Amino acid sequence: MTIQSKAAARPGGVTTGPITGSHKTYSSPAGHPDILVPFREIALDPAASEPPFRVYDTSGPFTDPAVTIDLAAGLPRLRAPWIAARGIAEVRAREVRPEDNGNAAADRLVAPCPADLTVRAARSGQPVTQFEFARAGVITEEMRFVAHRENLGRAGMVEGAEARRADGEDFGAAIPPFITPEFVRSEIAAGRAIIPANINHPELEPTIIGRNFLVKVNANIGNSAVTSGAAEEVEKLVWAIRWGADTVMDLSTGRNIHNIRGWILRNSPVPIGTVPIYQALEKVDGDPEKLTWEIFRDTLIEQAEQGVDYFTIHAGVRLAYVPLTANRVTGIVSRGGSIMARWCLAHHRESFLYTHFDEICDIMRAYDVSFSLGDGLRPGSIADANDRAQFAELETLGELTKIAWDKGCQVMIEGPGHVPMHKIKINMEKQLAECGEAPFYTLGPLTTDIAPGYDHITSAIGAAMIGWFGTAMLCYVTPKEHLGLPDRDDVKTGVITYRIAAHAADLAKGHPAARLRDDALSRARFDFRWEDQFNLALDPDTARSYHDLTMPKEAHKVAHFCSMCGPKFCSMRISHDLRAEAERIAGLESKSEEFRAAGGALYIPEEAAD
Amino acid sequence: MTIQSKAAARPGGVTTGPITGSHKTYSSPAGHPDILVPFREIALDPAASEPPFRVYDTSGPFTDPAVTIDLAAGLPRLRAPWIAARGIAEVRAREVRPEDNGNAAADRLVAPCPADLTVRAARSGQPVTQFEFARAGVITEEMRFVAHRENLGRAGMVEGAEARRADGEDFGAAIPPFITPEFVRSEIAAGRAIIPANINHPELEPTIIGRNFLVKVNANIGNSAVTSGAAEEVEKLVWAIRWGADTVMDLSTGRNIHNIRGWILRNSPVPIGTVPIYQALEKVDGDPEKLTWEIFRDTLIEQAEQGVDYFTIHAGVRLAYVPLTANRVTGIVSRGGSIMARWCLAHHRESFLYTHFDEICDIMRAYDVSFSLGDGLRPGSIADANDRAQFAELETLGELTKIAWDKGCQVMIEGPGHVPMHKIKINMEKQLAECGEAPFYTLGPLTTDIAPGYDHITSAIGAAMIGWFGTAMLCYVTPKEHLGLPDRDDVKTGVITYRIAAHAADLAKGHPAARLRDDALSRARFDFRWEDQFNLALDPDTARSYHDLTMPKEAHKVAHFCSMCGPKFCSMRISHDLRAEAERIAGLESKSEEFRAAGGALYIPEEAAD
Repeated sequence: MTIQSKAAARPGGVTTGPITGSHKTYSSPAGHPDILVPFREIALDPAASEPPFRVYDTSGPFTDPAVTIDLAAGLPRLRAPWIAARGIAEVRAREVRPEDNGNAAADRLVAPCPADLTVRAARSGQPVTQFEFARAGVITEEMRFVAHRENLGRAGMVEGAEARRADGEDFGAAIPPFITPEFVRSEIAAGRAIIPANINHPELEPTIIGRNFLVKVNANIGNSAVTSGAAEEVEKLVWAIRWGADTVMDLSTGRNIHNIRGWILRNSPVPIGTVPIYQALEKVDGDPEKLTWEIFRDTLIEQAEQGVDYFTIHAGVRLAYVPLTANRVTGIVSRGGSIMARWCLAHHRESFLYTHFDEICDIMRAYDVSFSLGDGLRPGSIADANDRAQFAELETLGELTKIAWDKGCQVMIEGPGHVPMHKIKINMEKQLAECGEAPFYTLGPLTTDIAPGYDHITSAIGAAMIGWFGTAMLCYVTPKEHLGLPDRDDVKTGVITYRIAAHAADLAKGHPAARLRDDALSRARFDFRWEDQFNLALDPDTARSYHDLTMPKEAHKVAHFCSMCGPKFCSMRISHDLRAEAERIAGLESKSEEFRAAGGALYIPEEAAD
Repeated sequence: MTIQSKAAARPGGVTTGPITGSHKTYSSPAGHPDILVPFREIALDPAASEPPFRVYDTSGPFTDPAVTIDLAAGLPRLRAPWIAARGIAEVRAREVRPEDNGNAAADRLVAPCPADLTVRAARSGQPVTQFEFARAGVITEEMRFVAHRENLGRAGMVEGAEARRADGEDFGAAIPPFITPEFVRSEIAAGRAIIPANINHPELEPTIIGRNFLVKVNANIGNSAVTSGAAEEVEKLVWAIRWGADTVMDLSTGRNIHNIRGWILRNSPVPIGTVPIYQALEKVDGDPEKLTWEIFRDTLIEQAEQGVDYFTIHAGVRLAYVPLTANRVTGIVSRGGSIMARWCLAHHRESFLYTHFDEICDIMRAYDVSFSLGDGLRPGSIADANDRAQFAELETLGELTKIAWDKGCQVMIEGPGHVPMHKIKINMEKQLAECGEAPFYTLGPLTTDIAPGYDHITSAIGAAMIGWFGTAMLCYVTPKEHLGLPDRDDVKTGVITYRIAAHAADLAKGHPAARLRDDALSRARFDFRWEDQFNLALDPDTARSYHDLTMPKEAHKVAHFCSMCGPKFCSMRISHDLRAEAERIAGLESKSEEFRAAGGALYIPEEAAD
């Protein structure tokens, strides 16, 4: 049902330009001028006497006015020299076949992205993954990049960092005061973190996913059989990363899936994940029973060559587990899980993803495609949370994690789903135990089923908690979950909501510099620096527009009160007066000492108090 | 700045009519046909073979088409006979003075609500409060009412209730399988719960606030110096309770405050709370230094006679604590707290709320106005959370709680504010310990400062958690928090968001029947009963409209797939097929047994699996 004309095939306009009140900046680790790490700097009012505030920046070159965006040419390829230096050979790319694009008719075919790509693949035994390098003691450029990126704000506060860290509870994580490239290497070598970074995705600005690093957020995009197309998908990517998505999953189905993915990858500064079984299913006309290992294998290679950074592989959906879902309230709600369950039952055989798991590892290793081991049996309702089907699969994912590591692959593990608050921690603990501390990547979890239309909120509650407990990346949920496809506003709402959850988790874990932004914003709030307050917010535009609704005048942006209480009642203003008064009255402290001394008696006679 | 013409003085239209897909129903406890407890019944598709689903209903007579709403006459007075039977004498009402309405000029004066009210007050020593009756072993009609209301859904599942309760963690609360009037009485007598119910508010449908009952939600309304008026305030009340607010605080300031409050009270089926110091301040032209005990005392009587059910009293802001806030990032952010701090400093005297606390108790007892002991020193930023100022005040609130109990008053305690996740539980534990388990009533808490425009979400995370840990009532936060005044949409968003938090807490605490609604909605979802899914949602209208956006056709409301995946990929449909197939294939279970037996070996040869 996707309608694409040739005219619309080349995405033209995407959102560019700086985020309000800030500008892009770059910084390099000492001694590595070739590594340019992007940040965003928010200028503050001179009255603040504070330097510009630097924040983590996922938005890529799209927010840098100095970069000319040409979607047909793709983004600058910062990783190209790093990858080339590793001696990974160029290979002859698999030829694109009509079924890769759902046999789209010529007049409906989205043209391929013309940006040329040198397709590479490692030979058997040749080290290529970040995991293999880490195990061999090699610090890659990607590791240096993420170390510098994660250290944001910490450099200036290393001395005070220990004290700050004490103000958190990290549930056994080991967050260091300062992130060194060696620490990054050691975490990847231990399997506790991954840098999803396909060698065929040179446009990538690397990011690290692991529980000793900042909590990350994934946003899903994708056309479906019912709506959407290429132009919108690239814009959705740009829009999602503008508001803070650390990775993006392309869950497209239907026609033009291959070519749309090409446009996305050549224009993505963030890791792109996919669920290859979706495309494989398209190739067999949507009939799960017709799926074969050969078709799936070919799809893995097709996507790995394009540069996809991580694959969701539902290899934990074993034949024996399918009956465990029969009496659930909501059965199997994962698309990939239900496809594989159907295949298993129809053929009465073990899943080919499971029986061919070592071959899948070999393919993914050759490109450094990271595993995202899918939770095909995740609960779709509070009633089904933490049941035997879910945990049986998780135990299998633990087995598969160790196999993938032995094969040299990077691995993360997907998690639920719908889980009430009191069952969230059990999930995290079991995942850590079963999967050897491989990073957890959870959808929500949703803490109740009764609020369709607000599931970004039902799930943000669970996401903040599980992020605190140790989840490394949170998959966003939009307000349209369970009801429809997210539009532009929904994607933004979902991303901002999940940035809130991730940041709340970072604060609670005691990430050394996490609170700096809260403090800067709160100082701005207390000082009535309205513009600074807006610009330091996760969403400056919405904050400003809400203020405008009640107090539209420009003068009110410097008002020393706000619309909630009006000038007479402003508690902050009174509080300022109090502080001034406290300074004026020299004897105040001693006065209060008198009171404290007299504080044992509940009622102090008024004479005594004067 | 409030502009009110006589024409707008009598609120005309408010939102009436049933909530989509449901109708009002009433039910009486056995043996008490005079007690009619409102519920809402959601009719389900006949295909469900399920009885109509009954839910808690805060919306009052406004959603009952059988009741003619006449704002000038006020709501039916269901409590009038109960109160009259207690022999509380009618008193001559205090005369309304011009300053009660901010000296509004005649042409700007909102006319008083003409509904006549018999003003009553208990004599000294005459039992009147729910607390006094409970201590005397008397079960009031209000106690029977709330017991029946809270038991919703439990009657049919008492036998299974123990098992269901085990599936929760209540952190030392003692939630019984079934709520009896005697349990209600004992909880009130212990100070662990309150029924805010001024004897001059006969229109009230009583509700109970305590950690062994369902978590409640408060919504704030109120005009301010900058905007709003009478008609909107009554509609805001009606709108807030329509979506699930259990109590409403009228935080009005400015002109017409007395008369607007009259309209609100005579038309409110939920407890109304106020912060009397706001009106007292209006009477001294907004200058905190001019406040006196006499003006405050007179305001308490004025509001108690009108029927306000609970007062926020910031009596814990002691002179000695004010200097503790001097070095905070955001000083004092509570309006009431800053007003009192200013008064204390200006006069160098202990707060008159503290020195006259026993007289305040005497006044409030006479009408059964419940205390909401205000947290005037609550933190306004993550940086200030759990600091000495906050906890010093909480300790004083603990002292005052015991005094108020000794005086026969009902008491709850207000809580923070801005608190990161890892500091939330400490708050709850300290509140329980200091205040003898008096109900906690918290604002949020907000778990980060960096998302103005989304503080309903930053706070819903903290609210769900603290509700789980033991908070009895959550004060909502709207998207406009920190930025502007909430409009109609913001009020709805705030209430629904907080209903989510409260319900997530109820689920996690293991409230026996809390999960019934989740299960009913999830069954509807799995069965593709779209209309049932919408109608069982907290907000049926939004759920339906989101579905319409992607799949507007009526036929899609019976479609056995949805817009997210389209027909080919629908996991739920596949899951249904699986279940049917599982039933068809008799040998399936034994097949899976074979697999389980063979499961020790990771790779099962394909031949063996067939």
